[in-house]
Amino acid sequence: MLQRVLEYAHYLLASSVEEGDMVVDGTAGNGHDTVFLSKLVGEEGTVLSFDIQEKAILNTEDRIHEEQLKNVHLIQDSHDQLVKYIPDFHEEIGGAIYNLGYLPGSDKTIVTKPDTTLESVKEVLSRLKQEGMLVLVVYYGHSGGDEEKEALLKYLSQLSQKEFNVLRYGFINQVNKPPFILAVEKK
Amino acid sequence: MLQRVLEYAHYLLASSVEEGDMVVDGTAGNGHDTVFLSKLVGEEGTVLSFDIQEKAILNTEDRIHEEQLKNVHLIQDSHDQLVKYIPDFHEEIGGAIYNLGYLPGSDKTIVTKPDTTLESVKEVLSRLKQEGMLVLVVYYGHSGGDEEKEALLKYLSQLSQKEFNVLRYGFINQVNKPPFILAVEKK
Repeated sequence: MLQRVLEYAHYLLASSVEEGDMVVDGTAGNGHDTVFLSKLVGEEGTVLSFDIQEKAILNTEDRIHEEQLKNVHLIQDSHDQLVKYIPDFHEEIGGAIYNLGYLPGSDKTIVTKPDTTLESVKEVLSRLKQEGMLVLVVYYGHSGGDEEKEALLKYLSQLSQKEFNVLRYGFINQVNKPPFILAVEKK
Repeated sequence: MLQRVLEYAHYLLASSVEEGDMVVDGTAGNGHDTVFLSKLVGEEGTVLSFDIQEKAILNTEDRIHEEQLKNVHLIQDSHDQLVKYIPDFHEEIGGAIYNLGYLPGSDKTIVTKPDTTLESVKEVLSRLKQEGMLVLVVYYGHSGGDEEKEALLKYLSQLSQKEFNVLRYGFINQVNKPPFILAVEKK
């Protein structure tokens, strides 16, 4: 069976993140990915989970409490400010996931933006461990979504194939612009 | 680790083809995929392996003898003539793979063509078992390759999402137009 996009995103993280890693959720949203990452890295690991919206932080906080997770740093700031929050400046990133677009069930005008998304992507890639993966789930059906998608495709398709593998994974016969994956693996 | 394109093509077939199936290799080439399919379907299964070039048929015959495989029907004809060779007209196809382009190490002007490729793809899809998969490995760096790629993308992206899932899987930061996968799964 072909894996659905969200299922494949988690499969990629599970195949590359290790216990004890420091990992990044670039868009906390409803907390789904943060909880998943938290369990992957275990008690010795750390999740830095970002969102600019208070609602997303509160949603995610609820999920963390429910699941009694102790390794998540919830940060209400833009993911392009990532570096400020890395506990040890020299630490590598074990993996990262971003859901680009807007927070489901919330204000659709508050969306991720090409400039800050690219800044954050560059930060993550410069610190990614060997065989670590950055997984971008690209929603682009909203206003401004196409621009962000094109900016990402342009940047990522120019990454050196000696340093990174950049995979595009998506279904091409679905209506309503469903999300696709851009996965960047550090060689 | 992200799976390479050819590795992923075999992974998809292995995840969907069952012992006893009738399966199709639309482009026998050097016999690599035919041998792989033959082992997947086992003694009770059948592989219909097509190629228009004698050299490809001979290459594949050698591989079949080496491996002592008994379940392969080698057919020197175009894959758009598929129906003529199905032993039982009502039998479903358990899976199929096509490597589009030219035969490696041979005459680069003998290539798969949009019209016959599409005809053959339509035949396979109309007979594919439930959860069966057609895997197209799309090489398009040769003369005429872009036209074939575009024709396939156009046709496959219009397939009903109620009947099929059409996945595109490929690396976007590599030079020299490496192949990508179009995988069609019958729902």
